[in-house]
Amino acid sequence: MKGFSIALQPYQFVMPRKIIFGWGCRQHLAEELPRWGTRVFVICGSRTLERQGVLDHLRRLLERAGVTWQFLTTISREPLVCDVDAVTGQVRSIGLRPGDMLLAVGGGSAIDLAKAVAAMATNSQGESVQDYLENVGRGLKLTQPPLPVVAVPTTAGTGTEATRNAVISSLDPPFKKSLRDDRVVPLVAVVDPELTVTQPPHVTASSGMDAITQLVESFISNRRKPIPQMLAPEGLRLALKWLTTAYREPDHREAREAMAQAALLSGICLANAGLGMAHGIAAALGVVAGIPHGLACAMMLPAALRANRTVVGRELAYLTRHALEKDFPNDDAAVDALIEAVEQLRADLHLPQKLREIGVSQEMIPKIAAGSFGTSMSGNPRPMTQGEIEDILCSLY
Amino acid sequence: MKGFSIALQPYQFVMPRKIIFGWGCRQHLAEELPRWGTRVFVICGSRTLERQGVLDHLRRLLERAGVTWQFLTTISREPLVCDVDAVTGQVRSIGLRPGDMLLAVGGGSAIDLAKAVAAMATNSQGESVQDYLENVGRGLKLTQPPLPVVAVPTTAGTGTEATRNAVISSLDPPFKKSLRDDRVVPLVAVVDPELTVTQPPHVTASSGMDAITQLVESFISNRRKPIPQMLAPEGLRLALKWLTTAYREPDHREAREAMAQAALLSGICLANAGLGMAHGIAAALGVVAGIPHGLACAMMLPAALRANRTVVGRELAYLTRHALEKDFPNDDAAVDALIEAVEQLRADLHLPQKLREIGVSQEMIPKIAAGSFGTSMSGNPRPMTQGEIEDILCSLY
Repeated sequence: MKGFSIALQPYQFVMPRKIIFGWGCRQHLAEELPRWGTRVFVICGSRTLERQGVLDHLRRLLERAGVTWQFLTTISREPLVCDVDAVTGQVRSIGLRPGDMLLAVGGGSAIDLAKAVAAMATNSQGESVQDYLENVGRGLKLTQPPLPVVAVPTTAGTGTEATRNAVISSLDPPFKKSLRDDRVVPLVAVVDPELTVTQPPHVTASSGMDAITQLVESFISNRRKPIPQMLAPEGLRLALKWLTTAYREPDHREAREAMAQAALLSGICLANAGLGMAHGIAAALGVVAGIPHGLACAMMLPAALRANRTVVGRELAYLTRHALEKDFPNDDAAVDALIEAVEQLRADLHLPQKLREIGVSQEMIPKIAAGSFGTSMSGNPRPMTQGEIEDILCSLY
Repeated sequence: MKGFSIALQPYQFVMPRKIIFGWGCRQHLAEELPRWGTRVFVICGSRTLERQGVLDHLRRLLERAGVTWQFLTTISREPLVCDVDAVTGQVRSIGLRPGDMLLAVGGGSAIDLAKAVAAMATNSQGESVQDYLENVGRGLKLTQPPLPVVAVPTTAGTGTEATRNAVISSLDPPFKKSLRDDRVVPLVAVVDPELTVTQPPHVTASSGMDAITQLVESFISNRRKPIPQMLAPEGLRLALKWLTTAYREPDHREAREAMAQAALLSGICLANAGLGMAHGIAAALGVVAGIPHGLACAMMLPAALRANRTVVGRELAYLTRHALEKDFPNDDAAVDALIEAVEQLRADLHLPQKLREIGVSQEMIPKIAAGSFGTSMSGNPRPMTQGEIEDILCSLY
C-alpha cells in the first residue's frame, strides 16, 4: 500500500512439512506420529522434565498408538559439541532402523540438540558434529538426509521448530556456531501454547522480544523473500498486541496463543530471509559479555530501526500499518510509531535499556562491535561499518 | 484494518517441505534431488514431452548428478483409475529401494498421477487406487508414507504442486474423486515460470481464473486458517494484476512469474482452508456438462461473491484492499470493486459469461444444482440450498 508491494524475486523456501497448532494440541501426536514412523528417540528440556506429567502422558499416548518410545536425554543448557557427540553415540549404539524419528519436547536447546543429533545419526564421515559447523572444524556437509525431527516447543521465541539450523556451542575453544542444512527443518512442528504457560515472566519477555526482532529484521533484510514477507506482518501484529499480556498474566490463553504463533512465524521468516544488525550485535553481546539473547535483541532493535529507516522506510511503514492496524499520514510517521511501540513495549516488560545496566563495560565495546559482523549482520539492509556500530553501542551505554 | 483481523484458531497446516521458485529454476533439480534420494521414477505431461528438449535436458542433468532416471509414462488427459493401477504395477515390477522418489513434470494430470502412484507404490492392501478414493470404493486409508514426490508444474493454475489430494477419474462408473492424505503433498515443488510460456492463451485464461477462484474461496471459506489468510491476499494481488498480460503476451516474464506464484499460493491455501460454492458448482458443471474447470470457475466466481458478501463482507473487503492496493470508503464499496475487477478480467480474457454459450442446456440445471454439494460446497461461508443454486444457474443461463 502507498507504493510498497512485495517484490517477486526467485527464491527458495523451506518450512516444516506439517504444523499442528493449538491449545492442548500435543494430544494430536498420538495420531500424527504413527503416520510418519514407528519409533521416536526422545530429547527433552529440563523444564519439561520438571513437569514430568507432560512427558509421561505423551509417552503413554504414543506407546498406545504403537510408537516405540526411546528416551535419550534431558538438556538444561544450550547444547555443546560434546552433548551432540554423546547423544549421537547413544543413538548409534542402539542402532537405526527404518521408521526412526527424533522427538524434541522443550525449548530451543532441546530442539536444537535433536536437530543436530538427527543429522549426525545418519552422517558419520566426521568424528564430531564440530566438523559440520559453520566456520569451525572441517566444513563437512551432510551427505545423507537426517532423521525426521518432530519438534514440540515449550517456549515462544526462537522459532527453532521451523528453522534450518541448530546452534551448537563449545566452551574450549569458545564458540557458538550453526549446523545448517535445509533438511534439518523439522518434519512436523507441534505448537501447543499451553506448554508455554509455565515460562517465567522474564523468559516470556526476552523470548518474545527475540521473536519480534526476528520478524522485523527478516522483513527488511536484504535477503527478504516473498512468502516470509506475507507472514511477518501478521506475526508482528500478534506479538505487539499480546506480549505485554503474556508477560503480566502467564495463564492468559489468547496471549499465549498469539505469542506461540508469532514465534513460529518468526522462525519461518528468519530461516528463509535472514536477519540484520540487531541480531548481529546481539550475538556479539552474548559471546563477549554473556548477555542473554532476547535481552540483547530488545536493547538493539530500536537502534536497528533508526539505522535502517533511511533505506527501508517504505518496507517498515508497510509492516507498521499492518502490525498496528492503522494508517499514518506518511511513511515517516509510521516508522516513528513502530519505534515508539517497541520502546514502550520494552518499558512495559521492565527490560533494561542501557548496556551498563546489564554488566557491559565500556572497554568491551570495541570487541563487541568487531564481533558483530557475522551471518546476521550480512542481511542488514544498510551496510554498517565497525565505527558506526561502536557509536551506536556508546550511545546505548 | 477497518475492523478485520485474521483470527487465530487451532489449525493444521501442510505444504511442501521446500519450494524452489524462479525463471529457469528447474536447473536446481540437479543439486536438489541428490539431497533427498538416489532414483527418480518420472511421469510427464504430453506438452512436456512435445518439448522433448526440456525432459532430455533434465535427464542429463540428473544423471550427471548421480540420480538414476527411470521413465514411467506420459499422460495426456486427466488420470483414470486404470492409469494409476497400471503405473503402480510398473513401479512394483521394477521394485522399490531406499532413496526412491517420484518426479512429475507437467500439468495437473501428470502431478496428480505421480501423487497417486507414490501412495500406491507403498500401500498394497487395496487391489486398486479406487479402494482409497473418497466416497467410492472401500474407504481404505494409507498405512505407509508414500514415496516422496518432486513436482515441476508446467501450467499455472491448479496449484496441485502444493496440495494434499490427487484427483482421479473413472469413465465406468463415471466419477472424479480425490485420494487425500497429508503425506501426498509433494516434498519439493520446483516452480519454474519459464515452463508455462507455451501454455496456449485459453489455458492461461482458464487456469488463471481457477487460481483466482481458489484464492478467493479459501480466504472466505468457513474452514479458513491463519497462514492461508496471510498468503491469499498477495496471491490475488499478483493474479488480478498480471493475468491479462500473461494471456495477451505469452512470453511476458513478469506476468508468467506472477501467475506461477499466484497458482502456487492458491494450492497452499486450498489444501489447508478448503473452497466454496464456485468450486462446488464447477465440479458439477464438469461432471454433468463437461465444462472445463477453469471456465466454470470463471463463470461462477462473481455469483459466489454476490451470494456470500452478506456474511463475509469484512473478509472480502480486507482481501480487496490488499489485492487492488487501494482503500475504499467502506466495505461495500470494496466488495463492489472486487466483483467489478473479476468481471472485467473475465471480459478481457474473452471468457463466456452465460451457460448457454458453453453448451449447458436448461434441462441440465437441476442436475447441476443437485451435484454441487460436494466437499467444496461444504466450505462455503453461507449455507446454500439446492433451490438457491438453481436460481443462480438460471440467472446465468
